[in-house]
Amino acid sequence: MLEMTSARANQSRIFFSTQREIDLYELEELCDAVGWARRPLRKVKKALENSFLLVSMWEVKGNKKRLIGFARATSDHAFNATIWDVVVNPKFQNKGLGKALMKYTIKKLRNSDISNITLFADPQVVEFYRQLGFMQDPEGIKGMFWYPD
Amino acid sequence: MLEMTSARANQSRIFFSTQREIDLYELEELCDAVGWARRPLRKVKKALENSFLLVSMWEVKGNKKRLIGFARATSDHAFNATIWDVVVNPKFQNKGLGKALMKYTIKKLRNSDISNITLFADPQVVEFYRQLGFMQDPEGIKGMFWYPD
Repeated sequence: MLEMTSARANQSRIFFSTQREIDLYELEELCDAVGWARRPLRKVKKALENSFLLVSMWEVKGNKKRLIGFARATSDHAFNATIWDVVVNPKFQNKGLGKALMKYTIKKLRNSDISNITLFADPQVVEFYRQLGFMQDPEGIKGMFWYPD
Repeated sequence: MLEMTSARANQSRIFFSTQREIDLYELEELCDAVGWARRPLRKVKKALENSFLLVSMWEVKGNKKRLIGFARATSDHAFNATIWDVVVNPKFQNKGLGKALMKYTIKKLRNSDISNITLFADPQVVEFYRQLGFMQDPEGIKGMFWYPD
């Protein structure tokens, strides 16, 4: 399931994968690095198990492998997919790797015959996703959220 | 799995259900009634199978049962759910039944410990969802769509 891309960071190689075995502690470390609020590992485990697609990005140096990026998607396996939890280790940002991660994710969803790929973008990443071809509020469609009181 | 509510239309009773056995032809008929584009039944079947929650609304008159509303949600079973395909038969609209259908759907998702309930609303139903407590673009979060070329 490992696939090499032309993206490189220093002398190391960068790999993308859809393998479903993700070390929860390594993923938590990655999310910590971007300052996300901690989530119960039990719930993270359940969320990964019930995601349609898990995409991980790895730096490989010699025989050492390090999780440096991640994204996942929920889906009905037919029409729609929604991408969540896109994260790239800050030390590996601004090298085009986030873009490569997303392109890989889109390709995998397209290969699964999913036509409608959606996500909810924080204000500071709207432009990032726009450059990848995501449209904001197409035809006036609005993303809406319901939170408990 | 059938649950009665206080909502009534004429002399008939209205039931809500999360039963997963939905007649695909009856659902297609319902979607036809609101003018949706036909979708391949094979894909609809797959989408229903891989949805986290199916909610159906039924009119019961005597021993006859009729599908008059539907909604479904994809989810990671832990953090997020996204509601799709909300439909109410036009003959049963403007009676508060769409609102009842959505409240039932939200309740079921909340009972499953899903905290973040999302959807993508067409412009003409944004106000409907707002009245149900859905917020548009909270904290500047934007719904974004990627379509194939």
